[in-house]
Amino acid sequence: MEKIVKELSIQTDSKIVLLVLDGLGGLRVDGQTELEAAKTPNLDQLAANSSCGLTDPVSMGITPGSGPAHMSLFGYDPLFYLLGRGILEALGVGVNVGKNDMVARGNFATLKDGLIIDRRAGRIPTNENEKLCQKINNSIQSVMGAQTVVYPGKEHRFVVKFSKHGLMDSLTDADPQKENKPVVYSQAKVPEAEESARIINAFTDKVTDLLRDNTNANTVMLRGFSKHPSIPTMQELYHLKAAAIANYPMYKGLAKLVGMDILDAGTSQEDLVTTLEEHYNDYDFFYVHVKKTDSAGEDGNFSAKVAVIEKTDTYIPRFLDLNPDVLAVTSDHSTPSFMKGHSWHPNPILIHARTAQGDPVDHFSERACCFGYLGRFHAIHVMPLLLAHAGKLKKYGA
Amino acid sequence: MEKIVKELSIQTDSKIVLLVLDGLGGLRVDGQTELEAAKTPNLDQLAANSSCGLTDPVSMGITPGSGPAHMSLFGYDPLFYLLGRGILEALGVGVNVGKNDMVARGNFATLKDGLIIDRRAGRIPTNENEKLCQKINNSIQSVMGAQTVVYPGKEHRFVVKFSKHGLMDSLTDADPQKENKPVVYSQAKVPEAEESARIINAFTDKVTDLLRDNTNANTVMLRGFSKHPSIPTMQELYHLKAAAIANYPMYKGLAKLVGMDILDAGTSQEDLVTTLEEHYNDYDFFYVHVKKTDSAGEDGNFSAKVAVIEKTDTYIPRFLDLNPDVLAVTSDHSTPSFMKGHSWHPNPILIHARTAQGDPVDHFSERACCFGYLGRFHAIHVMPLLLAHAGKLKKYGA
Repeated sequence: MEKIVKELSIQTDSKIVLLVLDGLGGLRVDGQTELEAAKTPNLDQLAANSSCGLTDPVSMGITPGSGPAHMSLFGYDPLFYLLGRGILEALGVGVNVGKNDMVARGNFATLKDGLIIDRRAGRIPTNENEKLCQKINNSIQSVMGAQTVVYPGKEHRFVVKFSKHGLMDSLTDADPQKENKPVVYSQAKVPEAEESARIINAFTDKVTDLLRDNTNANTVMLRGFSKHPSIPTMQELYHLKAAAIANYPMYKGLAKLVGMDILDAGTSQEDLVTTLEEHYNDYDFFYVHVKKTDSAGEDGNFSAKVAVIEKTDTYIPRFLDLNPDVLAVTSDHSTPSFMKGHSWHPNPILIHARTAQGDPVDHFSERACCFGYLGRFHAIHVMPLLLAHAGKLKKYGA
Repeated sequence: MEKIVKELSIQTDSKIVLLVLDGLGGLRVDGQTELEAAKTPNLDQLAANSSCGLTDPVSMGITPGSGPAHMSLFGYDPLFYLLGRGILEALGVGVNVGKNDMVARGNFATLKDGLIIDRRAGRIPTNENEKLCQKINNSIQSVMGAQTVVYPGKEHRFVVKFSKHGLMDSLTDADPQKENKPVVYSQAKVPEAEESARIINAFTDKVTDLLRDNTNANTVMLRGFSKHPSIPTMQELYHLKAAAIANYPMYKGLAKLVGMDILDAGTSQEDLVTTLEEHYNDYDFFYVHVKKTDSAGEDGNFSAKVAVIEKTDTYIPRFLDLNPDVLAVTSDHSTPSFMKGHSWHPNPILIHARTAQGDPVDHFSERACCFGYLGRFHAIHVMPLLLAHAGKLKKYGA
């Protein structure tokens, strides 16, 4: 399908805006989902003048992480384009990953008498983590010709980046997985990765030597080695000049993976909309990402999620004032506050365009979208639909 | 899926009628689609007593040509059974293509000082085209052992058929694609096609020599070389004795590709129904094709499309009088008059049978079908559904 879409897509001046409310889909609490409880007059009016439906990010029943959910929404088969944990963690802390880079997730850990006795180093506070990373970066800049940088995460977690031509990520994790086991070194799964394994293990030894006087965080464990994945860009696939407008590094990173330009989009929802307005003439596809619906859902905070939805609703007129050829509103996956986490429930979606068929849906909610003209479908079809509505797909066959 | 259906299908005496209103699906103009604006009491009553839904011919967002759209409706994966441009053009002008035949699309063109200066020979009138084809057929009947016939199309377009055992269509187009470029000869893409390339190029040279004194149409360009595609018949796949009842050559041709008998069905909708009635005892599957919904849509003529739908509606009682075990009404693709062309919008479908589940749909329209029991699905599943409702599919597994 990807091949056909690539073959049929053409560059035009029409514009597509894809507004993603992360984790929008919810479940009923006291009879209403977050989206149903929210007062959304603008989204409701938009839904009444749009084609609506429900999308499954990966497959029915499958709860996706942000990586697969976004890949699907961007039109990339999430079962084919696998994003390593390392790369996602790196994107999450804003690490810039290039073609010669390999990243991994790291834990500070506690080593005693040759055994890892605590895989999380007593969950050291984040500010101690930051100091440790600074110390490592000050003392170690390269190992066996590979440049190295560590980036602090939360508590005991960090990301490490190795930069050298020819690195390979066919490597086992350098992590015993359980406590009270000996240190484990990374091993090459293929002969070509042996140098990479040696670099990693030498780095771990150097760091352990540097931290030897610490009580808790006196070693590190690395896992999820990932090179920059080989993914065709949205320009290559869809002939789109695409821009990402997101407040958080993970989503900027995901958008960058598929070749979008990353705009400086500030920190608030207001900033997102202003950025869209300022750059509206420069691109023909805009991915606008609202994070806090998901954060509130993860926190189990129903009313906070309602508030983010209501706030987003107030910006809809400004989206419409730009008069995009296609405006779609959806989410990457559901995050019901009832469940305090991502879930497999499908995403409500609306597609507003001159060529969008009307349907019986007169407001925007999970249940209303059951009656939508788009039906329930795999999110991987969202991009072809948006391109079609924007007049960017030629006819297939005669 | 095709393999399973082949394995499970059995011959029975039950009868299926598939009524296709070409390009039926539309978009709203003044709040109503063509199908909504049309007065269709018979189709509405039928929908109220049928299972309804919406089908995507190829994939969501993909606008199909008639070839892929029909292949899907007949149960053949349109991404696997690719029909070359040449074969579709040949079917469109009613050329009979056999196993030893290779067809191509042709343009009359203007050659001057070794350059193609007009790829359409000034868009010569169709009657001049017809005279030129007659002249070519009178002078040239074979080239290097291959029989040749040309068939006039509209304006500067024609179809050429080469007949010889062993011809191969792995050939590049003999067309410079742009004006003011030198003549381009066809080249073999594989060694086995070299004789075919020589035949084609010798034919082009002979025709150019024959037309050398003309001012405009003094050469020809050939492209889209296609052998008869290798497609299992409906008899082989479904154990059906199938007949096509269509007024237009393209659809007779498509039906013939999948092994249907082509009935002489006159030129009007009345003729279609009379033909069905006359041959009702001779077959167990009937594909009945109404063309003018599509033609009116292509012309952007909303009211003409409404009129064709209303006319078709008046024949529904005669379909029902035959008491078929399964009567399905749908389209191959949408052709909204609002868009003046084919579109990606799904097709409304109703399946009327003793075993058809009831649903909330009480009239036949794009929006009503959103509530259908069949949901929104890939058109490739239509044939298995019809066979099932006709009791022609055995149980799968124990």
